Amino acid sequence: MPNVLTHNSYGKSAVRLTKVVRAGSVHHLFEIEAAIQLEGDFEPAYLAGDNRGVVATDSVKNTVYVLAKEHAFDSVEQLALILARHFVATYPQVRQATVEMTQASWRRIDVAGTPHDHAFTGGGPQRRYAKAVMTRGGEGGGGVLGPVLTGGVRELLVLKTTASEWRDFVADRYRTLKDATDRIMASKVDADWAYNTLAADFPAAAAAVDSAILTTFATRHSLGVQQTLTDMGGAALAACPAIDSISFELPNLHRIPFNLAPFGLAFENDVYVATDEPYGLIKGTVSRGK
Amino acid sequence: MPNVLTHNSYGKSAVRLTKVVRAGSVHHLFEIEAAIQLEGDFEPAYLAGDNRGVVATDSVKNTVYVLAKEHAFDSVEQLALILARHFVATYPQVRQATVEMTQASWRRIDVAGTPHDHAFTGGGPQRRYAKAVMTRGGEGGGGVLGPVLTGGVRELLVLKTTASEWRDFVADRYRTLKDATDRIMASKVDADWAYNTLAADFPAAAAAVDSAILTTFATRHSLGVQQTLTDMGGAALAACPAIDSISFELPNLHRIPFNLAPFGLAFENDVYVATDEPYGLIKGTVSRGK
Amino acid sequence: MPNVLTHNSYGKSAVRLTKVVRAGSVHHLFEIEAAIQLEGDFEPAYLAGDNRGVVATDSVKNTVYVLAKEHAFDSVEQLALILARHFVATYPQVRQATVEMTQASWRRIDVAGTPHDHAFTGGGPQRRYAKAVMTRGGEGGGGVLGPVLTGGVRELLVLKTTASEWRDFVADRYRTLKDATDRIMASKVDADWAYNTLAADFPAAAAAVDSAILTTFATRHSLGVQQTLTDMGGAALAACPAIDSISFELPNLHRIPFNLAPFGLAFENDVYVATDEPYGLIKGTVSRGK
Amino acid sequence: MPNVLTHNSYGKSAVRLTKVVRAGSVHHLFEIEAAIQLEGDFEPAYLAGDNRGVVATDSVKNTVYVLAKEHAFDSVEQLALILARHFVATYPQVRQATVEMTQASWRRIDVAGTPHDHAFTGGGPQRRYAKAVMTRGGEGGGGVLGPVLTGGVRELLVLKTTASEWRDFVADRYRTLKDATDRIMASKVDADWAYNTLAADFPAAAAAVDSAILTTFATRHSLGVQQTLTDMGGAALAACPAIDSISFELPNLHRIPFNLAPFGLAFENDVYVATDEPYGLIKGTVSRGK
Repeated sequence: MPNVLTHNSYGKSAVRLTKVVRAGSVHHLFEIEAAIQLEGDFEPAYLAGDNRGVVATDSVKNTVYVLAKEHAFDSVEQLALILARHFVATYPQVRQATVEMTQASWRRIDVAGTPHDHAFTGGGPQRRYAKAVMTRGGEGGGGVLGPVLTGGVRELLVLKTTASEWRDFVADRYRTLKDATDRIMASKVDADWAYNTLAADFPAAAAAVDSAILTTFATRHSLGVQQTLTDMGGAALAACPAIDSISFELPNLHRIPFNLAPFGLAFENDVYVATDEPYGLIKGTVSRGK
Repeated sequence: MPNVLTHNSYGKSAVRLTKVVRAGSVHHLFEIEAAIQLEGDFEPAYLAGDNRGVVATDSVKNTVYVLAKEHAFDSVEQLALILARHFVATYPQVRQATVEMTQASWRRIDVAGTPHDHAFTGGGPQRRYAKAVMTRGGEGGGGVLGPVLTGGVRELLVLKTTASEWRDFVADRYRTLKDATDRIMASKVDADWAYNTLAADFPAAAAAVDSAILTTFATRHSLGVQQTLTDMGGAALAACPAIDSISFELPNLHRIPFNLAPFGLAFENDVYVATDEPYGLIKGTVSRGK
Repeated sequence: MPNVLTHNSYGKSAVRLTKVVRAGSVHHLFEIEAAIQLEGDFEPAYLAGDNRGVVATDSVKNTVYVLAKEHAFDSVEQLALILARHFVATYPQVRQATVEMTQASWRRIDVAGTPHDHAFTGGGPQRRYAKAVMTRGGEGGGGVLGPVLTGGVRELLVLKTTASEWRDFVADRYRTLKDATDRIMASKVDADWAYNTLAADFPAAAAAVDSAILTTFATRHSLGVQQTLTDMGGAALAACPAIDSISFELPNLHRIPFNLAPFGLAFENDVYVATDEPYGLIKGTVSRGK
Repeated sequence: MPNVLTHNSYGKSAVRLTKVVRAGSVHHLFEIEAAIQLEGDFEPAYLAGDNRGVVATDSVKNTVYVLAKEHAFDSVEQLALILARHFVATYPQVRQATVEMTQASWRRIDVAGTPHDHAFTGGGPQRRYAKAVMTRGGEGGGGVLGPVLTGGVRELLVLKTTASEWRDFVADRYRTLKDATDRIMASKVDADWAYNTLAADFPAAAAAVDSAILTTFATRHSLGVQQTLTDMGGAALAACPAIDSISFELPNLHRIPFNLAPFGLAFENDVYVATDEPYGLIKGTVSRGK
């Protein structure tokens, strides 16, 4: 039997767009990295090198800049929607378009107490994230809602120096870690949330989720990253009616007590070794009950 | 309605193991990075901070080293299987264990024409990859075959300076790229293949697939990365009976002709700008016909 | 003639320290990465493997944690001084100790308008930097002032969307870039400054320099990165009497106008391609006149 | 007193060049990353934004491609020399040009035992390095020899599983590490060597040095990284008459015995934790005696 091409998709990644929007003397800055994948009737290219139906990835890249020029948007959610709809609407051979975007954090430079009109500095490692998946027939066709839209945040750093425990876990041959009733907990939060509407105020929605995550992390006593994940998820759902579920990937960025005993000193929750690897990785999805 | 925890898993990532196996004066070196994720009855930890059923990620990490000590293995495939089976067999609360591993490429230092017994140098950026997924009841239970085993390679660099074209693709408003009948094609191959047996000679199988990929890339004229993907997949299936399908993610690492016209010089397929971003990303799965 | 060892030094790099200082319920967080290099009478180790005079790099690493435990400090400048002096004072075979440190930016999580006591989020990619170089005989010996102390900042991101030009540069065969009278200017500022005192309020000094850099970048019209460098240096010297000179390494993080002409659209300083490479790199040192 | 500009230089970094040279059907591939810095009479640009003497970094970048087109070269050493001489010869305002280059390792794909004519795969993480520094008046002027030329290698990975010790180092309060008479030694060699001629066969010279480093690392018993550095330096000087000194930066990539005691198992130089940080960093320069 001959081989079969059982899946295919292609597109352009790491498309880096800067857009400046001028509202009088006040400039708004978007710095976005986009990745687009197209699925559809592309077997001729894969099987025979017949590229007549293929939109070149270079053209896909051009499209990002052209549509960013032609459309106003306030968020990566909006721009991802614009692009995902475009590819399905424009090319009959495209069955599904997936657009992912991250947006860098810039904040206005503070000059004598006033945020500057057109000068910015880095706002933190965290980046906004959005994903829009548009499937042919998904919009307007038979009651289907249209594109599936995900929002998110990447690499939102958090660390608390107390109010975190880790104890009473399985004790067996493979355990060497002791119970801890007061430890540092740190993570680099990746969160994805499912919007239940395409008409949300996306910047406000994302800000509400971020704030819920940070506030919960800061103020809720933690018995483990797992519990904190659920707490943060619940707070996000409570804070943002526009989302129906939220998924987390939480690396546990371990801060390990430095063994001061050989030096005649006592560890007093004060001196730690910061490590990147290995790291715990805790995942979970919290959804609105129905 | 209260919120619901609709998914959860956890484990340890970036566990870095070095194992030396001594066959007389000849030493064999394994340098492996492992990531383990466990799924199962862990809701009490997520919902209430009740960790009594949780195997700490630190214990998961310990397990990698202990089992690497206690078991002989010839490949990441074998060690991944050992670990995936261990977690399901040992902990009733674990419903599924996913073990992913990559292995660094070391080759023996050549000393006056002879590979050295115990000294090594970097063998390339490419790394072996394996994933074993063991599900409770998956082994011996009702005819189910057991763990699902994937092999693979990561970051296998390839570049050819000719015998590659890209032409006749969609011409519309968004196209600016011209047809090319002679271009550089370069990629960093990520491939995953599905084993149809747990008893293969895994190093030989992986070597056969790698060789099929490299030889096909070198010797087959290319009308596009899509076609080359299918060609490489077919060659891999032909070369390795132990696999039933192979998936690729092929970034198109563009080498762009440098525009020499302003300097009164002609481009003769000789001087290019090497770029990392943006990059095309071509995906596909080739499966054995049935 | 036999070979000669004409230089040697050794030490430990990437020592990652977390220190928590508790002022009642308010916790202060230091996350520091240190690199130490020692020079001195270590030829026996290099020439004959006689390590009796060598302080192991593992001991150097231990020393960072022990001294961080035993000493209070308010800045990387202070801790670098403590360590540099320690190595020279403790080991007669050490002729010079160089301690470099960077400190991650954390800021308190804002909870309902109030900075939290013990929970933090990432404050930006920029990091504090300090270097202390202590040479034997450098302190108290014959009027010499003591350690040489450098402060600095690493990866302070800045971007302005207007008020930046680049024009009238050399026009010859190799030039293809046109004059620009309104462009984006972006950089990731690395700055090092030379303290003229070991008794400064280092956090205040560094904050004053950072603020001078940011304010100047935002408010001064720029005819080029070179001019902006000098302007920022002058402002830093004016703002911080505790420093005598300041050196910059300013990558020019190009934002390139996207060519909209093929699409029938006009570039209006709005849509750019963000690039990381290649990048201009502009260096310079501004010193107080004497 | 007004401030003074006490140093300045500028240029372009991360210029990525691919050049293909065709010798009949056999293609030779150069993939090079270049960084150029120019020093000279550029104060007007720094002090007043007067850029009339400034060669734009974009023009510097263009020059790399144009000269790579117009000149044959067999090595980064030759191309670095061509560029460094060009900038000083072409622009009277340039007092010194520093050109640094690294070259990626590609090797021909082996097809049925034969290296392929035009298809390549990654040859390892190591990269060739060269630096040429040309100073005005440095060539032909008053007996001065001309450009200063450095060759080198970056990230040459080495690891040996035995024949390496580390013992008898300073025992004091800060030491916790035990003597080791059989350990793994691993490093990522960075070496720079000073050529004593501009007319060497550079590929042969670099290959001879690499081989001396690898062979010495493999075959010489080691009492420490320091001793191994000196041994490798001596071997390099013996193998390559075209160089007069060689400098190393050797990170000690620690492989730490995994503590098997809690699991009732014995460590037998077999199971280690691979770590990247912290790392020892051993430096030294070995020069020919005169």
